[in-house]
Amino acid sequence: MTQMKNCIHFDCNYSKKLFTIAIDIGGTLAKVVYSPLCSNTLCFDTIESARIDDFILLLHNLVKDHNNNDYQTTQIIATGGGAYKFYNLLTKEFSNIKSISRFDEMECLIKGLNMFIHKIKDEVFTYNDIEGMKIIQHSLNSKEDANNNKNIDTLIYPYLLVNIGSGVSILKVESPNEFSRVGGSSLGGGTLWGLLSLITGAKTYDEMLSWAQEGDNTNVDMLVGDIYGSGYSNIGLKSTHIASSFAKVFENRSSSTSTETKKDMSNELENLSIDDNENPNESSRITSTEIINRRKTEKSFRNEDISKSLLYAISNNIGQIAYLQAKIHNVHNIYFGGSYIRGHLTTMNTLSYAINFWSDGTKQAFFLKHEGYLGAMGAFLSEVE
Amino acid sequence: MTQMKNCIHFDCNYSKKLFTIAIDIGGTLAKVVYSPLCSNTLCFDTIESARIDDFILLLHNLVKDHNNNDYQTTQIIATGGGAYKFYNLLTKEFSNIKSISRFDEMECLIKGLNMFIHKIKDEVFTYNDIEGMKIIQHSLNSKEDANNNKNIDTLIYPYLLVNIGSGVSILKVESPNEFSRVGGSSLGGGTLWGLLSLITGAKTYDEMLSWAQEGDNTNVDMLVGDIYGSGYSNIGLKSTHIASSFAKVFENRSSSTSTETKKDMSNELENLSIDDNENPNESSRITSTEIINRRKTEKSFRNEDISKSLLYAISNNIGQIAYLQAKIHNVHNIYFGGSYIRGHLTTMNTLSYAINFWSDGTKQAFFLKHEGYLGAMGAFLSEVE
Repeated sequence: MTQMKNCIHFDCNYSKKLFTIAIDIGGTLAKVVYSPLCSNTLCFDTIESARIDDFILLLHNLVKDHNNNDYQTTQIIATGGGAYKFYNLLTKEFSNIKSISRFDEMECLIKGLNMFIHKIKDEVFTYNDIEGMKIIQHSLNSKEDANNNKNIDTLIYPYLLVNIGSGVSILKVESPNEFSRVGGSSLGGGTLWGLLSLITGAKTYDEMLSWAQEGDNTNVDMLVGDIYGSGYSNIGLKSTHIASSFAKVFENRSSSTSTETKKDMSNELENLSIDDNENPNESSRITSTEIINRRKTEKSFRNEDISKSLLYAISNNIGQIAYLQAKIHNVHNIYFGGSYIRGHLTTMNTLSYAINFWSDGTKQAFFLKHEGYLGAMGAFLSEVE
Repeated sequence: MTQMKNCIHFDCNYSKKLFTIAIDIGGTLAKVVYSPLCSNTLCFDTIESARIDDFILLLHNLVKDHNNNDYQTTQIIATGGGAYKFYNLLTKEFSNIKSISRFDEMECLIKGLNMFIHKIKDEVFTYNDIEGMKIIQHSLNSKEDANNNKNIDTLIYPYLLVNIGSGVSILKVESPNEFSRVGGSSLGGGTLWGLLSLITGAKTYDEMLSWAQEGDNTNVDMLVGDIYGSGYSNIGLKSTHIASSFAKVFENRSSSTSTETKKDMSNELENLSIDDNENPNESSRITSTEIINRRKTEKSFRNEDISKSLLYAISNNIGQIAYLQAKIHNVHNIYFGGSYIRGHLTTMNTLSYAINFWSDGTKQAFFLKHEGYLGAMGAFLSEVE
């Protein structure tokens, strides 16, 4: 179910004089959408933004494979921060191309999402572990459907788009052409992969996600039951509720080193105080002795448990912020997009659970099969229009 | 300024027949408030909850030092989760004590905060790096002040209390006796210390805080400028705005290992897909080879930079959630309490900055000198009343 397809069928009604390559270069991933001429298909591809040379090579190969190396009938439409950061590189690499144009990232996200919602069959779905995946049919593929356009739009708008890439952007969308960015968060995909790779040494997303699938977060997270010995019934928190992500890690370290850190109790409070002008004299770089000591301690924390805990923490947090924004803006439908999700069931279940938990079931999380391509899709459509 | 005092002057108007020890045992720290008989002072102390035996010993020492080892005229008033989790241990250890009573954690937090706001001079302050610390005088120490009680209360209420311990609780307080818990977050102090100790090997809070003071988060955080090459003016984000916490870590790892992870591009998208039923065959435990490889890579990430980045990430996130809750509940004054803050200037500046940034200056962050003792203070007062 979660397999992303390389190409999908799409009835192209636009001029086919030009071979269009739409790119969305984000902080971590560079995405491309193109439609081979006369194919009525849309194709999608992704590569790390840090491998920008490989990405440029990918684009050259597309011109070669799908437009007979004819740059004069090829256009590039770019969005995302990289459209600006790498603009000089792009114009140098594609100096003989028909045109390179740029469009605003947020506009492209919304244009792309509106297209996926309305035009691509079986694209939008809901998911949670209990009910599984449910396809939502908003797509309008027949003339009859098109007549109902206005009615359907009253069900769709307003909505919130929570786009989770390296960071998070939250947009409120009132109608197909009316939107505003209402918030965001720096705790996104870049945070999850950055921290997890640092802690576990993992080198790929898939390695971390498969660990997260296997892990038991209760080995590192502090639950309400760990603090209370039971639930906290006065405020309705179950014993299994996560009170503090990762709090068992320092607790264990602290108690395992209690002999050496044990101090005269009368001085305890003074030791709590901080001198903010203090310059630590000792080097903070890790010594080999410390690494060896750490490895002994680290044995009790499995990569699987750490991965699941951090996936929960980041996803729950995004879900909560999305809910709070939806409440402030009185919106019931929340679409989650961006390359963070990657069709991963635990991630989607956590986002759905967070929305349901905080909203008491009054708000609904939606997902998309091509979640990572909203911006590139919107860029593709910008020129076509 | 940020030094917490062991004892403060306080005019005790209550019956002094009993020696009262108030304790608040949280997920990470156990706090105690007591008033030596006939002293007109309040004393504060803290110890890790994981060192519960040392905490019990501390309580025994208080009875010995301040009440002539007379358990029959000593009472313990307990709150926090540990009041329930460790109740049997407490009753066993203090079987000959006058009484052990328990009070609800949230009620104690509010009771303690209201006392600190109204009764302790120079307790409440605002802080940011530009304006420094400003004492807020709500305290009522004279009869004349007491007559103004009602007027002052209209300035104080309603307020939000954001209590940051291992996790975060957010309470809306309408009046001295009217409050509700409106939200919370699992990303709190336990998360900061847990993740930092895991990554840096640090064993104390102070070590991590002094690193955070020294660090440069831009070595690990991805800024808007890193993605755009400049600011993103369309939505008013400066180039220095943190787009994604820790996103430079995986970016660097990804690019440094690009040769080995380089794949046939036509397969790129298939590699993005996840099989959620997959069981990883390889062990996920860290091997020595991996550790050695990691150490080589880790050299480029300093403990200082990591500590500052995570302190920023957690504090910003709490600030944002606090702002969103304050907006939903139409509250302008936001008090930050709990042992997370520890009088640390960077932490307070980050919380203040977040409230100011998100609210466009319409909401105000307040801090307290005895931030970690709201619950224990409230417990102390519960019995006295």
